[in-house]
Order: sequence, then structure tokens, then C-alpha cells
Amino acid sequence: MTELLKKYIREHEQEILNTWFEALRIPSVSAKAEHKPDMRRMAEWLADILDRELGFAADIIETETNPLVFGQSPEVPGAPTVLIYGHYDVQPADPVGQWRTPPFEPAVIDGKVFCRGADDDKGQSLTHVFAVKSLLETDGKLPLNIKFIFEGEEEVGSSALSAFLESEENRRTLAADVILVSDTDKPAADDPGITYGLRGVVGYELTLTGPNRDLHSGLYGGSVRNPVIALCAMLSEIIGPDGKIRIPGFYDDVVPLSALERAELARRPFDEAEALAAVGLDASFGEPEFTVVERRGARPSFDINGITGGYQGEGGKTIIPARASAKFTFRLVPNQKPETVTRALEEFLRSRLPAGIKMDLVFQHGAGGMVIPLESPFLQAAARGLESVYGKAPLFIRDGGSIPIVAQAKERLGADLILAGAGLEEDGIHSPNEHFALRDFFLGIESSAAILTELAKAKR
Amino acid sequence: MTELLKKYIREHEQEILNTWFEALRIPSVSAKAEHKPDMRRMAEWLADILDRELGFAADIIETETNPLVFGQSPEVPGAPTVLIYGHYDVQPADPVGQWRTPPFEPAVIDGKVFCRGADDDKGQSLTHVFAVKSLLETDGKLPLNIKFIFEGEEEVGSSALSAFLESEENRRTLAADVILVSDTDKPAADDPGITYGLRGVVGYELTLTGPNRDLHSGLYGGSVRNPVIALCAMLSEIIGPDGKIRIPGFYDDVVPLSALERAELARRPFDEAEALAAVGLDASFGEPEFTVVERRGARPSFDINGITGGYQGEGGKTIIPARASAKFTFRLVPNQKPETVTRALEEFLRSRLPAGIKMDLVFQHGAGGMVIPLESPFLQAAARGLESVYGKAPLFIRDGGSIPIVAQAKERLGADLILAGAGLEEDGIHSPNEHFALRDFFLGIESSAAILTELAKAKR
Repeated sequence: MTELLKKYIREHEQEILNTWFEALRIPSVSAKAEHKPDMRRMAEWLADILDRELGFAADIIETETNPLVFGQSPEVPGAPTVLIYGHYDVQPADPVGQWRTPPFEPAVIDGKVFCRGADDDKGQSLTHVFAVKSLLETDGKLPLNIKFIFEGEEEVGSSALSAFLESEENRRTLAADVILVSDTDKPAADDPGITYGLRGVVGYELTLTGPNRDLHSGLYGGSVRNPVIALCAMLSEIIGPDGKIRIPGFYDDVVPLSALERAELARRPFDEAEALAAVGLDASFGEPEFTVVERRGARPSFDINGITGGYQGEGGKTIIPARASAKFTFRLVPNQKPETVTRALEEFLRSRLPAGIKMDLVFQHGAGGMVIPLESPFLQAAARGLESVYGKAPLFIRDGGSIPIVAQAKERLGADLILAGAGLEEDGIHSPNEHFALRDFFLGIESSAAILTELAKAKR
Repeated sequence: MTELLKKYIREHEQEILNTWFEALRIPSVSAKAEHKPDMRRMAEWLADILDRELGFAADIIETETNPLVFGQSPEVPGAPTVLIYGHYDVQPADPVGQWRTPPFEPAVIDGKVFCRGADDDKGQSLTHVFAVKSLLETDGKLPLNIKFIFEGEEEVGSSALSAFLESEENRRTLAADVILVSDTDKPAADDPGITYGLRGVVGYELTLTGPNRDLHSGLYGGSVRNPVIALCAMLSEIIGPDGKIRIPGFYDDVVPLSALERAELARRPFDEAEALAAVGLDASFGEPEFTVVERRGARPSFDINGITGGYQGEGGKTIIPARASAKFTFRLVPNQKPETVTRALEEFLRSRLPAGIKMDLVFQHGAGGMVIPLESPFLQAAARGLESVYGKAPLFIRDGGSIPIVAQAKERLGADLILAGAGLEEDGIHSPNEHFALRDFFLGIESSAAILTELAKAKR
């Protein structure tokens, strides 16, 4: 990490913040149709930045859903090519009432920027844009070939980019030696990390229907199956109090953790009581034979993300609701397949469906997990880059989150993959009051510049 | 039933409908604070009707919540006194989207009036007002002393009327030989009935809280207790697939049904398949050793009325929600006490509360059930009145619904009680598209006039 680069970043902090905040103010929520125009505004803003700030050839690629944004540097013959991936869509701001500041207006409080997308993934994505700009401004040229691809659907299943990767011509457009992604966390503010494993995810919505209308619970109670009770019973059978998923065959494809891997995961600094206290808890949950770090990163899990049914207003309403539904997800580990899980789940639920209730199970999205070989020369180069910024070697970690499209892109492009996040778990991505510390953000820019510098020297 | 009276009612149908529809257009939803002004409008409208149409001395009685409306006829010395009870509040119209016509605009379709409150209880209450008016107009005077009491909180626990009954002076105001109530169903359009038993009800809201904010299900999944899953598990333990409530001691105070009573209940014409088909079901539910009629009217039951937690919008959101809650009710049979059930329930839930979850159980409302002795001379007089209108003796039935305040008023006033409804189960009270057939409504007016005529001759 050169002093010149650091100086450049320091001197342009305000300019960088202004640009970042412009991006944060566009409420690009991919899950809600009402934000459709914001998705386009956001894509146009990004293409404009690549073009105007970096002088890249930038394109908006139309898709059946939200546009992709692609940009590439002028060619540097003989140098490796890195494809930098990011996503410009964000999670919904719900529950909006729990935000202390407006969710789409960046607010700097205690050295942190509060805004939906501050970290995930506008902040993280932009660290790379600003890093490339810093390299260009301090050196006059780039040491390697750089391509950017941004999608607008990471939070809802990446269908457009996934379809884009199906075509050989498109794969030639995106071709790279290595993919660089910042959509994961670092272990701690002063501890860099490279994520070498990610969980997959599969999401569903289950709707149970009973009577053709809400019924009076006095006139009918005790003689008619209540769809909310049926839903509670069916969902609570999926997981036991020991954190084990009870669907027959669910664990069949799970590769047992090796002793070596468990030792590596145990190196991660993790204070369980402190981590729990940070989210207001005094007890953890889960499979007793695995550590909390293992449960989060290397074991599958089941969560209900939302449930709804019947009367939810003020006071009470003495009814048997006509229907009830729930959205839920499983996190998967490498080698578990969404299709297999879906088949087993459907059979499990059907076999438990009580008389008088109809079920509708909708598959919402799914992707497998992945693990990256630690011996990749690009991974080692990235580690040297991070060490030059933080003064210590990064930890190699397995992350519990899922970036489904990344696993697919890696496989489709035959490229190596570096997941080096600049944000922290405590940033509260997907939660109200999501934030990104300014220090972490600027360290992210420095880290990206250092990683790109090291990658330029690496050989496949 | 005199021909003169029938003729009077027939000739005044349009005038009666106009008055009834005025009442239906006032959205007096007691469960929602936004309707507070409508509660007063409705009370004032009722007092005005008693005063203007019947020449009764009518008062609005202020309470800590919604006003009571009281009115009484000029004294008829030596004649019995009947207290007619009704409620002017209605259930919320939710889910509003499922109404085929606007919920607070009466619409006459196929001889039925569709509107929230058409039956429960504005329509039923007003049958008595119009009956009294018909008696006055055809005879010039009333054959007995009549008092009306209307409350605005039957759907939310009757707290004002309950408090009113605490004072001896107020009990003198309401003093009567018999209470007449139309807030129950008749067995079929041409089959009159007198309800001699009602279930009680007790309602709660349970909220479970886990982490202090919604968490990312990738980063935390498998290591943190999910409050929605905990809620599902706890609630589904309350009842078994056999319809049995599993709370220890719950059935301790239930008086077994006698063979005689089961025989009486079996007399009620009831086509199970038809009743199920009417609400879109092909299977019943519940305790196998009891008939559907028994389950509905004479056995306790448990229903979740509403459940909510996490993300309920479009698409998905991969979170572990911070909290989840449910509203639920138990229907009770005579001799079961709400306090006893509450204690047992709280203990049951506490013993099942998993680590990492906090619970808050709020008691919303409660009242015991009741059974009325069949030998009451007023009950027999009412039966003769109904027979004179329908040409057949009424069935004596036990209804699954609850009118908590009625049991209390009966006890406090030491009066007999007649529950003779004019509506039908199929009217869909508490559901979208609540309605009341015009024929049933006018038969209700005739029945009330006939019952009052017979009660005038009865001796305690």
C-alpha cells in the first residue's frame, strides 16, 4: 500500500462521501414493484459513474427484469483480468418505524453512515470504484484489466444475471481470471478476512387455506380446522429444540466438517457472550455438538422470515381465519442441492397436511453453497494486499450468508474467487439502522487498491 | 300473533328498512380507536329512535369508554318488566378486500341485506324496537313494562356495562323479571329456537421477543432462536390433532354432558356435510367422541384468531424477526372460569418458553359460559310466542358463541333470560359479507312482538 495512494484517498474523502451518498439516496429495493423506476435510476447512475469517474466503457444491459451494469477498463496486454462484482439493489427498509433516521437519507452519527444499503452492497461495491479511481489518479494507468458487473437483483434471486451467464457470448464479455467481491464481513474492525466458504439458501412461501371465509370462533370453534394452528404445527415440526432439521434426508448431502477445518474456524476471534449481547440476547441456540461459528458458517439452518394470518389490528377479533401463510428459508452448506431440499420439504409438508386444509408451497429462490480452495494464487495475492493495509494476515473464514449468483458466476466463468468484505457483522445489514463505519469504508477502498495491485502481479 | 300486527308490519316495511339502514351506515367498530366518534353518533342515534319512535324516556349514560343507551316505557302497573338487551358496536370489517359490497353501505341482494352489523347486532337489536313500535301503533299501549339497554362494547369485552352493573342504584334502573336478547341464531329459516346455553370466552395476546432487531438469517441462522418458530411451537402445543386442549387442568371444571342433554342436542336438524360445504370445507375437525353440534355448543375450544411476525410484504426478506405475536381465544363451557384458565395457560406457556426468548401474555377479555333452566315460565311463554309465528315449537339449543355480559346481567339482576335469535348461522357474522335475510328480519319483528305479548301474561 503506497503512501501516495493513502494521501490521495485522504484528500478526496469529502468528494468520495458525496458520491457514495448520492447512491444511497436512491431507494433501489428490488423486492417491491413500486421501486421499479428507482432500479433504473440506480443502474443509470452507476453506468454514469463508471464512465465519468473512471473513463470505462460502460453499458446498461437490458434484461427481462432489472438492468445489469457492465464496464471495462482500457486493455492492459499481458496482465490478468479481474471481474469486480457488486449489486445495486437493497433489502426493503421494513419495519420502517424502527429506523432512528430516514432509511434512504444517509446520516453520519458517531463516525458511522446510517442508511439502507450503506454497507450491503452499495457501500461495499463502491469501495472498488473509488479504489480504481485512486489507482488511476495516482498512477495515471491501471496495472491490470478490470471489469465491473453490477446486478439489481441479488436480494431477490439474481434471475437476470443468472440468465445472462447462460450465453457463451455473455460469458466472453465477463471472462476474467479472478472475481473480486465485497459482499461479506471482515472478522473485526482491525482484522481482515477472506471468506472461502458461503452457505447456499433456498426460500419458500407456504399458504394454508381452510374455510372459504373467516368464521366466527364461537359458532365454529372446536369443529373446524384452524389454518393458523395448522401452519404453526407444520412449521414447528420442521426443526427440533436441538436445532436439528427433521425433514428426512435433509442432511444426506452435508459433507462432515474435517478436523482441520474445525481448527481453522476455531481461529476466528469470537466472543460468544459479547456477540449475543450485541443483539440483545443472553442465550444462543442450535446444534449442541457444533460451535456458534460453525453453526453460522458451516451448518445448514432453518428460519421463518415472516408469518401472517387472521386479524392483526388493534384489540381482538374472534375469528377462525380463512388462511395463513409464512415465508421461510433454509441456509444450505456446499453439496446440498436446492432441488433435493425442495422435494424433501414438499413431501414432508404434504404428509403432515391435516384434513380440511389446502396447501400451496411456492419456491421463491434457491442456490447452493460453495467452498474455494485455499491454494489459489489469486487468493494468496489478495491476502498479501490485505496484510499490507492492516499489518496482519487475513483470517480465512466461512460465512453464513449466501451470494447465490457468485457461486454460479465462478463456475460459469471458470474463474477464481476472492470474497474480501470491508464491513462488519454489527453493521446490521437487512435490519433497521443498517450502517457502515467511515473508517471501515475507507479501509475498504485502501484494501481494494492493495488487492488489485497484488493481483496484477499474480499468475494463475 | 294478531293479523292486525302482521298487516301493520307489512305496510311499514320500507319505513322500517330506511331506519335500519341509517343505523348500518354508522361504522361503529368498537375495536378501533379511529371509530370513537362513530360510537357516540351511534349511541345518539339509538337514544333518538327510542325517544322519537317509541316515546320512551331515553338517556345516554356516559361511561369511561363508550356510552350506554337506556330507555323505558311508561309504567304498566302490575305487569311484568322485560329488559331488552342489544349492542350497537360491530366487529371490524377486516379483511375489507373480501367484501363484495362496501362494508358500511347496506346492499340488498337476493332478498338479503349485506352490511357489517346487518345481523350482529344492529339488525337483531332493532327487531325489538320495531316490534315495540308495532305493538304501540296497533294497540295504542304496551301490555307490559319494557326497558332497553344497548351497549357499545360487546365485541371488545363489555367493560362499561359490566362496571355499570356493579352499582346497586344502576341495578335498580335495569331491574326486570326477564331479559330478552337477540344475539344468537335460530336453527334454520323456518325453525325457531331458544338458546338455553352459551359458551364463555377468554382472549389473549402473546408476544415473543428474541433479538433486539431483525437479524440477517445468513449471518445468524442456526445460532439464534427464531421468535416466530418459538411462537409456532408454543401455540401448536396447546392443542392436539384430536382437538384436545393439552393444558394441564384445562378440563377439570367441565361438567360432563348428560345423556338427556346429548339427546336434546341431537334433535337439532344439522346436516354436517352441508354445513361444511357452506364454508368451503370437506372435513370437520375436533374431539372424535363428540358430535359437531356438541363440539360447537357444549365443548370448549381453542382458536388462533391472528398471527403476525417478520416480513409480510411482496417477495422475501431473509431475516430472523425480532418478535412475533398472536391473538387467540378459548371458548369455555359453563363452570369453567377464565381466571383458572389464565393461570393454567400462563404456567403452560412459561414452562415451554425457550432460552433466548422473552414472553408477554396479555389477557384481553374473559367471561364464563352459562346454562338456563328450561322450566322458567318466561322461557315457556317465549316458546309459545315463537310457536304462534312459526307454527312450530322452538328447539332448545346450546350455542357456541359467547355473550359474556348477558351471563353477568342475568346473575346481577336476578332475572330470567330468553335468548331468541332471528338470524342464521349462514349470515356470516364476524366475516366479510355479513348479511341478514329480509324474511328473517321481519319474522324477527313478528317474533319479538309475539314474545312480548306472551311475556305480558306470564308469572314468575
